[in-house]
Amino acid sequence: MRKNNALEIWKDGGVVINGWLHNPSSFSAEMMAHHDYDCLTIDLQHGMIDFQVAVTMLQAISTASPTPLARVPHNDPAIIMKLLDAGAYGIICPFVNTREECERFVGACRYPPHGYRSNGPHRAVLYSGGGWSDYTEHANEMIAAIAMIESSEGLENVDAILSVEGLNAVLIGTTDLAFSLGCSTTFGDIDPQVRDAIEVIMATAKKYGCKVGTISPDGLGAKRAVQNGFDMVTPGTETSIMQAAVAGQIEIVRAGLNRA
Amino acid sequence: MRKNNALEIWKDGGVVINGWLHNPSSFSAEMMAHHDYDCLTIDLQHGMIDFQVAVTMLQAISTASPTPLARVPHNDPAIIMKLLDAGAYGIICPFVNTREECERFVGACRYPPHGYRSNGPHRAVLYSGGGWSDYTEHANEMIAAIAMIESSEGLENVDAILSVEGLNAVLIGTTDLAFSLGCSTTFGDIDPQVRDAIEVIMATAKKYGCKVGTISPDGLGAKRAVQNGFDMVTPGTETSIMQAAVAGQIEIVRAGLNRA
Amino acid sequence: MRKNNALEIWKDGGVVINGWLHNPSSFSAEMMAHHDYDCLTIDLQHGMIDFQVAVTMLQAISTASPTPLARVPHNDPAIIMKLLDAGAYGIICPFVNTREECERFVGACRYPPHGYRSNGPHRAVLYSGGGWSDYTEHANEMIAAIAMIESSEGLENVDAILSVEGLNAVLIGTTDLAFSLGCSTTFGDIDPQVRDAIEVIMATAKKYGCKVGTISPDGLGAKRAVQNGFDMVTPGTETSIMQAAVAGQIEIVRAGLNRA
Amino acid sequence: MRKNNALEIWKDGGVVINGWLHNPSSFSAEMMAHHDYDCLTIDLQHGMIDFQVAVTMLQAISTASPTPLARVPHNDPAIIMKLLDAGAYGIICPFVNTREECERFVGACRYPPHGYRSNGPHRAVLYSGGGWSDYTEHANEMIAAIAMIESSEGLENVDAILSVEGLNAVLIGTTDLAFSLGCSTTFGDIDPQVRDAIEVIMATAKKYGCKVGTISPDGLGAKRAVQNGFDMVTPGTETSIMQAAVAGQIEIVRAGLNRA
Amino acid sequence: MRKNNALEIWKDGGVVINGWLHNPSSFSAEMMAHHDYDCLTIDLQHGMIDFQVAVTMLQAISTASPTPLARVPHNDPAIIMKLLDAGAYGIICPFVNTREECERFVGACRYPPHGYRSNGPHRAVLYSGGGWSDYTEHANEMIAAIAMIESSEGLENVDAILSVEGLNAVLIGTTDLAFSLGCSTTFGDIDPQVRDAIEVIMATAKKYGCKVGTISPDGLGAKRAVQNGFDMVTPGTETSIMQAAVAGQIEIVRAGLNRA
Amino acid sequence: MRKNNALEIWKDGGVVINGWLHNPSSFSAEMMAHHDYDCLTIDLQHGMIDFQVAVTMLQAISTASPTPLARVPHNDPAIIMKLLDAGAYGIICPFVNTREECERFVGACRYPPHGYRSNGPHRAVLYSGGGWSDYTEHANEMIAAIAMIESSEGLENVDAILSVEGLNAVLIGTTDLAFSLGCSTTFGDIDPQVRDAIEVIMATAKKYGCKVGTISPDGLGAKRAVQNGFDMVTPGTETSIMQAAVAGQIEIVRAGLNRA
Repeated sequence: MRKNNALEIWKDGGVVINGWLHNPSSFSAEMMAHHDYDCLTIDLQHGMIDFQVAVTMLQAISTASPTPLARVPHNDPAIIMKLLDAGAYGIICPFVNTREECERFVGACRYPPHGYRSNGPHRAVLYSGGGWSDYTEHANEMIAAIAMIESSEGLENVDAILSVEGLNAVLIGTTDLAFSLGCSTTFGDIDPQVRDAIEVIMATAKKYGCKVGTISPDGLGAKRAVQNGFDMVTPGTETSIMQAAVAGQIEIVRAGLNRA
Repeated sequence: MRKNNALEIWKDGGVVINGWLHNPSSFSAEMMAHHDYDCLTIDLQHGMIDFQVAVTMLQAISTASPTPLARVPHNDPAIIMKLLDAGAYGIICPFVNTREECERFVGACRYPPHGYRSNGPHRAVLYSGGGWSDYTEHANEMIAAIAMIESSEGLENVDAILSVEGLNAVLIGTTDLAFSLGCSTTFGDIDPQVRDAIEVIMATAKKYGCKVGTISPDGLGAKRAVQNGFDMVTPGTETSIMQAAVAGQIEIVRAGLNRA
Repeated sequence: MRKNNALEIWKDGGVVINGWLHNPSSFSAEMMAHHDYDCLTIDLQHGMIDFQVAVTMLQAISTASPTPLARVPHNDPAIIMKLLDAGAYGIICPFVNTREECERFVGACRYPPHGYRSNGPHRAVLYSGGGWSDYTEHANEMIAAIAMIESSEGLENVDAILSVEGLNAVLIGTTDLAFSLGCSTTFGDIDPQVRDAIEVIMATAKKYGCKVGTISPDGLGAKRAVQNGFDMVTPGTETSIMQAAVAGQIEIVRAGLNRA
Repeated sequence: MRKNNALEIWKDGGVVINGWLHNPSSFSAEMMAHHDYDCLTIDLQHGMIDFQVAVTMLQAISTASPTPLARVPHNDPAIIMKLLDAGAYGIICPFVNTREECERFVGACRYPPHGYRSNGPHRAVLYSGGGWSDYTEHANEMIAAIAMIESSEGLENVDAILSVEGLNAVLIGTTDLAFSLGCSTTFGDIDPQVRDAIEVIMATAKKYGCKVGTISPDGLGAKRAVQNGFDMVTPGTETSIMQAAVAGQIEIVRAGLNRA
Repeated sequence: MRKNNALEIWKDGGVVINGWLHNPSSFSAEMMAHHDYDCLTIDLQHGMIDFQVAVTMLQAISTASPTPLARVPHNDPAIIMKLLDAGAYGIICPFVNTREECERFVGACRYPPHGYRSNGPHRAVLYSGGGWSDYTEHANEMIAAIAMIESSEGLENVDAILSVEGLNAVLIGTTDLAFSLGCSTTFGDIDPQVRDAIEVIMATAKKYGCKVGTISPDGLGAKRAVQNGFDMVTPGTETSIMQAAVAGQIEIVRAGLNRA
Repeated sequence: MRKNNALEIWKDGGVVINGWLHNPSSFSAEMMAHHDYDCLTIDLQHGMIDFQVAVTMLQAISTASPTPLARVPHNDPAIIMKLLDAGAYGIICPFVNTREECERFVGACRYPPHGYRSNGPHRAVLYSGGGWSDYTEHANEMIAAIAMIESSEGLENVDAILSVEGLNAVLIGTTDLAFSLGCSTTFGDIDPQVRDAIEVIMATAKKYGCKVGTISPDGLGAKRAVQNGFDMVTPGTETSIMQAAVAGQIEIVRAGLNRA
């Protein structure tokens, strides 16, 4: 069965560079897949993306080496299982607030006896490359289950959540966490309370052998995240990078024009 | 009837900053439309875009101020008229090689007696804002007809082409023109033969009151094009800008990682 | 092979009531197909509709009794044959200006020896109901070929055009014809020159056993067209009918409100 | 931040005229958006519409002045938040039966501390016009949260439901409410029991400063609803209006034909 | 109101032959609908299919005689009701594990007083053929509610589940059931424990007048299922049949080639 | 630059096994791409496929080893170039009837000086793997140009057509050719006149080093074609194979049922 880049890198103690997709376009996804990312996350929560287009994006990513992940809109086994059947090799689940929710999430990613995923990986077997029985046998260890902690309730239950067996990583949703803690959400200067919360999550994750990821607005932010010890970093989304760069290119031309 | 930014700017002797769309995505198009472009061109020739998606992109552009243009795959009245009916306010036509071809192109953009466009602007009237009879009355003067000269044959016929009545501008397709002339096509150093050809086209255009446009790989190239006297410049496509920027952002993070 | 309603009605000397589709939506098409039309025309010329969506509209129409027709964007064998393969039972071709163009059009609708249509009716056989060889055998007599005359050139060549063997009907494009003749295009009062042109076309059609159709803005216009001797009438498009009715419904409510 | 027409009109004590969309078509949506509606509701419950098409419909509506709302298929934070991120300026939620359900619904529409909406309004910021921080700051007061009461259980809990803070309006689902109460559902003559229920809901709404809306089959029904004191009226859907009008136009022509 | 083939056949004690669709394509669906199936199930759980495409597939199936069913991704009233509104004549619900879940499922398929389905069958009325009031009156008896038992928990509660009023049939999910029971899932040799479980389910179903269905990998499996007393059999999916046949056709050619 | 399987196999004197796609579905295309085909042809002529879906099918094929080809609806440089830009590695052109038409076709597949293809391979460079300049440099020798001879006119001009420089292969359209020659088109027994025509084409092709391909209804037909000396064989389409296999699977079950 084809390997999961993220899990392989983590085995070696490395840091995963993850791309992030908000644009409902398989062409965008394919261009992104030809860059030097280890993983690419299709965001069905805050992206303009639904399942049907996500399938074509998963196909587009399958033309290149990054491992396809998906963020689901919420902790719902239906969409989690559909995306796994469609070939996602990992799921990022927002707002995991309790141990029970985490178990529900991880269970949706695992076949029995480790979970309750239903069997029918009709596109996933094309991607995994070893056929149906190979996939069924190895999927539980190849699919990354990544829970987001991004609320005060999740923070309180961090120990109970991160100790759930089978959870591979926690992704810290800094903005929503800050909102939930009543702090400002500016990317630049992180509120001390948020910083403390992040440290608690990272320490707890380390205790349970759980990896820690984050999303940054750009490459510099992701570089800092590496320095701060994150195991998975995300240097912006394809659209945020495009938006910033487009503004810059226009500025170069506009600056050269003299209009009354 | 809503104005055409390009034609208005040209009336004042200004330079049009044009964006360029290759991604078949109305979300991309809408993001681009909220940047400081004067026009946005949906490229149905080299973009991954067909008519049905182009309609949603035209709608997306209509939410903001840039004027929507479209480049058609070839000099075919059918697709030209469909895009005008769908609300494009200008057409860029590749490989206009003879006067006859130019007349055929311009005629497709104009209602009789100035052309042979068929009447049925069902989405265009939503965009133009003044209703059916207003559109029918003013469309001929509001739609920009922009011919590309990008072959040795076109170069030879430049005078015959650019003197066609109703043609608003010529867009020089530097790469294909260089190819056609047997020159190298590197963006950086333009072959003298190509440079000469460009100068001939620009001079001829000036003679006939025809504006001149170009496509550059980025903002710096577009800035130089302004300095070189072009009336319409294009600082890259949304995907070329994204691609370059994504590579840069990843590089920043990768540089900070030490892997064996 | 399933019958073509239009051809059957014409055999009996009756008048065909035709619906017209501009909205790229199979749901719209299906709703329209459940009304009391004899035929429904998918308009790929002035509608916001391309081939891929047209296929789903043809499927939607196949759930009910109206016979599906399609208007192509221009006299191009490629799109004519694609739509026939997809199950259209008739083609309306705009701007047939010469006998040669008419032969080219009719030939694209007919298998040899009566034309040059390529063999591959992969969806059409599902609709026709009798299987591949049945379709191949009977298609030439079941597919309606309807040419539009809507230019001064077409008017001049009306005799040469309408005498082409295999042509079933002529659809008069009143608006474009008026434009082409330099007349006003208001629906209400038809210019005498246009009226004369229509009479010439109708008389010539009668001479060659060719049926005559038209498009009216609404039911009243279509009723008048019946009275004027047309064999196929079109009481507006689904979107023009919707637009007028929506305006009326809003007006009823707005009239009841008193706002400062 | 761009204003919400419904909330502005309600501030002035006015009545909102709302359009309703069932057709999965951005072209339909755009045509409707150019009519004199204050709001347009994309119906993801009973319409043939899913999220991906809804995004293009939201874009289409953004080309004109009506404020875009969406009815979700059920009280699910995932789809509520996705539609808000995509630029819906209000959510109509069916079958709100208890106070807890209403809190869950309203909370999904509000950022902390007034709710638990996750932060990521990637298309909404394009529509709102003031950028990310502006949107984040003002969204809670600009997004309309509209609960439907349409069951006997909801009727019993009307006081508990309508007193939830942050709820802007209640939409009475007359048909389902009648069904739930065991009454006939004919639009024409409302069962006295249903009429009483409506009056209870309206009185309770008034008590809590909550506005009251309804859906009528047509303009006359909406006019009566205005007279009956509703604050938001809906004169049919785009498809119901089209269906009725199409039948009428065909009838006019059919009536003029004599067939054996 | 148009009849439901499955319910009609079951009334006569017959066996239903059901097709199964995984491919998000209305063209596939239409081809399948022209084969000799009694029903066709659109699989939104393990197929690559979401609601928007399912609507076009329902339209495609409506062109021929098989009755359209849909399997939903999970026991969620929202998607169940949307598919019924779109014209599905039956719902297959995975993982019904308790009586409460079964009641929730069946209730979503029935209008009050037999359930809590919301009223708005906007496409269903086109398919059912008798209009809105006819549909509303008869839908409760025409829609098939089919629960899947495919877990050890469901097996334990089989009596409580199958005795729910209004449930028409149970579909045994052999693979997931085997997984859940800790057995091997090979199609060929069924584990005795699974065989026993199937017998218990079949016996319980008979007790309550509930029909029993299954999914087989191919026609031979389905034939055996008929012999084993199943009331509804499924001889593979359109894609599994295609995959096997394609491999066979290639093998025939490859076998004839000699390559070094 | 990634190699073209067909051209590589032909260099070694081997036979290419080609698959054929009629279903507008990237999921179908991806399943087909995981079978043991050398090439896969997306049929935009007789398939229900247009450019926009073809792009997603090209992406799907790019996940596996078969080389993607496309059959265009007609000899039109616009669609030929669009498909090449989208990553097709070869074009099959129907109805090439004269030398001039063949030159026009081959020229559209080649950059100057060997043709007049416009430069902009925005998706092709993702597939080819070596970047823009690599693609531009090698595309002329990597793209397969395959002309169909399928009319009496083409047969007459076979020598003039097949001697066009740069043409890689001829595909014989047996059915249309038979039609054109006035012969029966049954697949089984080929008319002697058609057989003679095929032999003439094959002999002429051999003279000019041009390869010869054909389309067969199934694997047995393709096997015979190999024996008859064809260099490229096509054992049915994905839908014809599915249709035949589905009928067979149903027959197995139906045969086991006894219905009155």
